[in-house]
Amino acid sequence: MKIALCQINPIIGDIEGNKEKILSGYKKGIEDKVDLVIFPELALIGYSPQDLVEKKEFRDAVIKASNEIAEFTTDVGLIFGAITEDEDNVGTNIFNSALLCYKGKIRLTQNKTLIPNYDVFDEIRYFESAKDTSLHHFKGEVLGISICEDIWNDKDYWKKRLYQHDPVEKLVKQGATLLINISASPYSYGKRFARKEMLSTLTKEDALPLVYCCLVGAQTELIFDGASMCFNDKGELKQLGKKYEEDYLIFDTSEDYSRVENVEASFEEEVYSALVLGVKDYCKKLNFKKVLIGLSGGIDSALVTAIAVEALGKENVEVVLLPSKYSSEGSVNDSLKLISNLGISHKVIPIQDVVDNLIELLAPSFEGKNHDTTEENLQSRSRGIILMAIANKHGHLLLTTGNKSEMAVGYATLYGDMCGGLGVIADVYKTDVYRLAEFINRDKEIIPQEIIEKAPSAELKPNQTDQDTLPPYDLLDSILRMYLENNKEFNEISQTIGDSSIVGKVLRMVDFNEFKRRQAAPALRISNKAFGYGRRYPIVQGWRK
Amino acid sequence: MKIALCQINPIIGDIEGNKEKILSGYKKGIEDKVDLVIFPELALIGYSPQDLVEKKEFRDAVIKASNEIAEFTTDVGLIFGAITEDEDNVGTNIFNSALLCYKGKIRLTQNKTLIPNYDVFDEIRYFESAKDTSLHHFKGEVLGISICEDIWNDKDYWKKRLYQHDPVEKLVKQGATLLINISASPYSYGKRFARKEMLSTLTKEDALPLVYCCLVGAQTELIFDGASMCFNDKGELKQLGKKYEEDYLIFDTSEDYSRVENVEASFEEEVYSALVLGVKDYCKKLNFKKVLIGLSGGIDSALVTAIAVEALGKENVEVVLLPSKYSSEGSVNDSLKLISNLGISHKVIPIQDVVDNLIELLAPSFEGKNHDTTEENLQSRSRGIILMAIANKHGHLLLTTGNKSEMAVGYATLYGDMCGGLGVIADVYKTDVYRLAEFINRDKEIIPQEIIEKAPSAELKPNQTDQDTLPPYDLLDSILRMYLENNKEFNEISQTIGDSSIVGKVLRMVDFNEFKRRQAAPALRISNKAFGYGRRYPIVQGWRK
Repeated sequence: MKIALCQINPIIGDIEGNKEKILSGYKKGIEDKVDLVIFPELALIGYSPQDLVEKKEFRDAVIKASNEIAEFTTDVGLIFGAITEDEDNVGTNIFNSALLCYKGKIRLTQNKTLIPNYDVFDEIRYFESAKDTSLHHFKGEVLGISICEDIWNDKDYWKKRLYQHDPVEKLVKQGATLLINISASPYSYGKRFARKEMLSTLTKEDALPLVYCCLVGAQTELIFDGASMCFNDKGELKQLGKKYEEDYLIFDTSEDYSRVENVEASFEEEVYSALVLGVKDYCKKLNFKKVLIGLSGGIDSALVTAIAVEALGKENVEVVLLPSKYSSEGSVNDSLKLISNLGISHKVIPIQDVVDNLIELLAPSFEGKNHDTTEENLQSRSRGIILMAIANKHGHLLLTTGNKSEMAVGYATLYGDMCGGLGVIADVYKTDVYRLAEFINRDKEIIPQEIIEKAPSAELKPNQTDQDTLPPYDLLDSILRMYLENNKEFNEISQTIGDSSIVGKVLRMVDFNEFKRRQAAPALRISNKAFGYGRRYPIVQGWRK
Repeated sequence: MKIALCQINPIIGDIEGNKEKILSGYKKGIEDKVDLVIFPELALIGYSPQDLVEKKEFRDAVIKASNEIAEFTTDVGLIFGAITEDEDNVGTNIFNSALLCYKGKIRLTQNKTLIPNYDVFDEIRYFESAKDTSLHHFKGEVLGISICEDIWNDKDYWKKRLYQHDPVEKLVKQGATLLINISASPYSYGKRFARKEMLSTLTKEDALPLVYCCLVGAQTELIFDGASMCFNDKGELKQLGKKYEEDYLIFDTSEDYSRVENVEASFEEEVYSALVLGVKDYCKKLNFKKVLIGLSGGIDSALVTAIAVEALGKENVEVVLLPSKYSSEGSVNDSLKLISNLGISHKVIPIQDVVDNLIELLAPSFEGKNHDTTEENLQSRSRGIILMAIANKHGHLLLTTGNKSEMAVGYATLYGDMCGGLGVIADVYKTDVYRLAEFINRDKEIIPQEIIEKAPSAELKPNQTDQDTLPPYDLLDSILRMYLENNKEFNEISQTIGDSSIVGKVLRMVDFNEFKRRQAAPALRISNKAFGYGRRYPIVQGWRK
């Protein structure tokens, strides 16, 4: 069977636009004389539509568009993801479905059985589990169709499983000759390798070929990396879709392809590409042409600027230097060097007068109180107000530059450096920020070495460095990784680190600063546990006092 | 059977503190010679612990504390809510449980069967459904114990049900003689009446008495209103716990009580009480002694100030007037009258110099551009920066004063008037803001009549009123209610309103401003659909262009 995989980048809720993408890919498949054209999970809707699903008029529009697509079909098969409903009187009666169409009709509606509800997934909120799984005989093959999570519960692969049922195992037992999985699987580093290992195990054990068609594109925080996969019946990966861009690829089950060995590049390369796509899609889908960044002279804003230039082109990135009396000469010069390396336009707006005016105005209210972080916040917020004004006036998107380590411990000013519409590196630890900077410099110096080498500093008071108040970043990041990504707790982390006082301090900082993160810009997600939608932690709590 | 209901206000995750509350209530029950002492759902943990549940060390601490509580028990029964685990190898293996203890041991662990996963509820993320429901014979009664949602699926009451199973029906069929439901049911207006109607129907049809023990207290956004209920076997409400405060009440199934008729007061009284508790608990549980409010002279900030004074006392509320050249004389005078009525301290900090300085500094960046909302935002943000500085310096909590209508359509400045830690009235429509103000003035004028009567204005440019850019609030709020609370969509709302162009405009504004709300302070929830945790809407979407 000759199959076309259409790895598309839909816009959530843009039913007409997504329908056009589906029809366009389907026509290409007809031209290429394939038997079957496949689109990802929820291709007609985008992932995740969230509460849009709860709107009857929205669902009706989806169902109407699905029928229109089906009417268009010839004898070439078409599979795409959409939502469907049933008439039952219990539950939501809404399903995340794969629709198989040909000769003008929807021939099979296979609903998703395993409904993920962890981390960034909230599907049980909307979708009911399929009541049945059915095969479909088509052009000599017996198609076993499943949707994303359905294929993530193989008892041979997982030591601990999330679900009792295994719909793919059922399809295999029923006699499927070709497995098809349509997916919307958000990327985090290591995930593509895991997908390949798991699907390779499954196809080898079941001795069945598998076509795995993935969504691509960024939807606010979530980055879908594409990289659709086709396996033969020996568990060998034979086709791999493009990463981080739309693709159309053909897999002929009767043809022999050379085996694809490497699916995932280095951490730096993958994460850099993911973040570039994240910035590009957020701007494109929201119709922002240009972005604005406040350049501090530090590595975080330098990295964000380099990513933005790659995503949008140097003509669409504007930076502002906002020096105060605590900004070192080095910071300004280093920023200018970065600006020159990237060929971008910039402004310099000194903030000291604004800060001094504010402090004078506030003097009566500050009487009898010591100098503290309030004055530091005033500087950061003065920068925020200026950047937002320029962004508002020109219709640019302000990007925030805080990294994950800072966001974790609250080393950031709410309404100050946290101003902005998208947290570009807010899921990247400080130690990984350096790795990404070195990666960007792999061929030539883009981020000046001076920026990479200097001690990190917020430059909000004289001779300040981050390590005045934080543990060294390698230690901090080790603790944070265990706490956030690996779900470890105080005792276990303390044993590993060997310093319970530092661990206690860090964990308290993370918990305490939940209130700041609740008001943070959405952050591009590149780890298996990012702040934001996938991590839900109470602001008010007494677990760790 | 003589039963004590302990309607407690736990702190999320404060296992030791909550354990003390449980032991203290239990001891009181022993003194009062009751047979059984009952605490609400998750009493040992608070609702909702969210991702804390995913931490093994947290769960271990809960299980240890549960056992310690059980060891303390005499022959007086004790039922409280906690989490438990099982050893299965599939799923989360974590349960939301009711533990029945006496004579030093846990005698029955009844897990929750119906796991809610809509609106603000995310329980399937953490908890598995009970594998079984069991009765327990105790002191001559057959106890049928259930947890919160378990009792919300009665087929005689609901036209459309969310779940296939009805664990309470099962307990009744198995032979329960007394129904016990422990609950954590967040309040929204009308909810208490619905609880009473539903439980009355159920107890009447099953001819069984019911003890319904509820949590009280605010947990950030969620406000639990207490008001535990006891029904006799004729469906009559015989005991009602206090509203919005902790309570300890006794229900003796063999005693005759007079019937309680009214469970819910007026919208104004209930919502006012709920918001007062919301402010009080947020401050208390986060150790804020004082709050700060920016007084504009408008009704929103006046209402928030009155609520804060009721919650914390006049000595703990400080207000700042931040007039600009667009502030009318009336605004300042009206604010001073409010301040005098409430007897609170205030500061006046004119912002015009700060704004002028910023505009001068930004002039080169604004060149060739017209005056627009950027300049308005600069005023709002200048106020935000000043208020945050005072709050930071003195350790006060800044309250935000935006109402739901404004938050819905984005009539608010991000990092400006949206600065603050808690959205006190962000779930109250503008038209309801007036109702609450009139309620506060029911005995004497607290909020000056001038504030109530003047046309709403942001006072960010000359002669501005809200209705320059927004539909009249009664029309706006009608549209918003249909769209947000009732899940209606464009066509249906247009038909009702009879003006599709206004409806389209409002709905586009609501959708477009999702990015602002994503960075908003948590909002006290008093409706069945508040912005924040319970409403999940994509920032980037093309459903309504």
